[in-house]
Amino acid sequence: MHFATLSGPAGPTAAVLAQDTWHALPWADLSELLGATTFAEAAALAGGPVPDARPLLPLPRPGKVICCGLNYGDHIRETGRALPEYPTLFPKYADTLTGPDADLVLPRGTQLDWEAELAVVVGAVLRSVDRDTAAAGIAGYTVTNDISVRDWQYRTLEWFQGKAWDASTPAGPVVVTPEEIDPVAGVDVVCRVNGEEVQRGDTGSLVFDAAGLLAYISTFTVLRPGDLVLTGTPGGVGTAREPQWFLADGDVVETSVTGIGTLRNTVRLTG
Amino acid sequence: MHFATLSGPAGPTAAVLAQDTWHALPWADLSELLGATTFAEAAALAGGPVPDARPLLPLPRPGKVICCGLNYGDHIRETGRALPEYPTLFPKYADTLTGPDADLVLPRGTQLDWEAELAVVVGAVLRSVDRDTAAAGIAGYTVTNDISVRDWQYRTLEWFQGKAWDASTPAGPVVVTPEEIDPVAGVDVVCRVNGEEVQRGDTGSLVFDAAGLLAYISTFTVLRPGDLVLTGTPGGVGTAREPQWFLADGDVVETSVTGIGTLRNTVRLTG
Repeated sequence: MHFATLSGPAGPTAAVLAQDTWHALPWADLSELLGATTFAEAAALAGGPVPDARPLLPLPRPGKVICCGLNYGDHIRETGRALPEYPTLFPKYADTLTGPDADLVLPRGTQLDWEAELAVVVGAVLRSVDRDTAAAGIAGYTVTNDISVRDWQYRTLEWFQGKAWDASTPAGPVVVTPEEIDPVAGVDVVCRVNGEEVQRGDTGSLVFDAAGLLAYISTFTVLRPGDLVLTGTPGGVGTAREPQWFLADGDVVETSVTGIGTLRNTVRLTG
Repeated sequence: MHFATLSGPAGPTAAVLAQDTWHALPWADLSELLGATTFAEAAALAGGPVPDARPLLPLPRPGKVICCGLNYGDHIRETGRALPEYPTLFPKYADTLTGPDADLVLPRGTQLDWEAELAVVVGAVLRSVDRDTAAAGIAGYTVTNDISVRDWQYRTLEWFQGKAWDASTPAGPVVVTPEEIDPVAGVDVVCRVNGEEVQRGDTGSLVFDAAGLLAYISTFTVLRPGDLVLTGTPGGVGTAREPQWFLADGDVVETSVTGIGTLRNTVRLTG
């Protein structure tokens, strides 16, 4: 099943796709939906079709957005590191997220880079759980781009200040439930800048898969329905290129995951 | 003025200290209070005294808890680093916090360490503000201990997974407003383990002061009333000692800041 938060005639609405048509659900967005019920239960409440449906940020209020760095073998190699024993984790905020077609408004003079990522949507309360419980607690998957302010990321040892700029991480356009997509078998994660393919990865090569990441994180902090876990980015980021390549004003970043959809965001530099 | 969240006869209540007596305020806790008004406005609404007042976690639901590492000159030297040009920042969650007298329930077999810290309570919406605006947006100060799981902190480059264990960071017992305490002039931050002083720092030696930290963070993400910014820890942490010293089951950690108060937490190892 496909779920989304859509701009409807009466404001945002959660929706489910049925027979190629989006049908409204009785919640304002998918954060509200997952706070109240499950996707399976929600689908039974599908109402009328949503006209002129435009996807918004599907999950506007995750309590936690946790990212895994260095998770694709090829991206790890381009940074010159060995395959990791533990996942490298860092957080973002709900404030960091933005819509699937939103402009990326960021300051001129910084080193803006792309990181196409598959994101896992948590569907259950998970604390100190094993892999199987974590796998059963996956509500679905969506597309994100962990747009990074590289000069701020590398100002200190901790990446956080380059990773948590407000409205810098597009997400969406839809959430696809696990029976339709199998990232362990492999789906393609692709980033294009102004139409040129800059990243292509296969989630089958992830060092830490979705269930493994959720179980690991749940060792130290609780995950709740609607939380997001970003699974890392494949090789091809701008900072690792020779010469380095950073995003410029007006650049169009397209981020796709097979079976989910595409984000299309334009960089707007200010200041 | 001193504010707290107290256990009252009818459940938690925000409260203000007047003439050595805690008086109830019409909010359940200081997160709710600062979401609705300011401390100055709230104080005018003081009700009856709260009998048998026991301080709880003063701010149970901050949207952001951001910590600065490596901010005292002596602690920077003990880690072998140079004085920083930029603050090293990393986050915790509301889930990471716990009460001023709560047990610290953490897994046996990990390297638990202390980090006594002065924390700043945000009192205004701050985004891209200068130092003066940030200074005016400080609601008050409280005491925290950034208890760290060192082996997890150093598993990868990013400290987050050693810093965000649920219910590991005690905070409180009260929030003191800025007219009563001047961390730039200097207040003592002290940690004792089983009565032995292990840390003593003077906030006057902070490389990045409260207003500077809030202004810097506001460059990339919005701060809101009730958010917390931890200002770093002085020298004397267990991991930097020869031999190293980590917390054991039953250890009592006392964390004090002059003019605010003392946290007293007992380590309870499980598993």
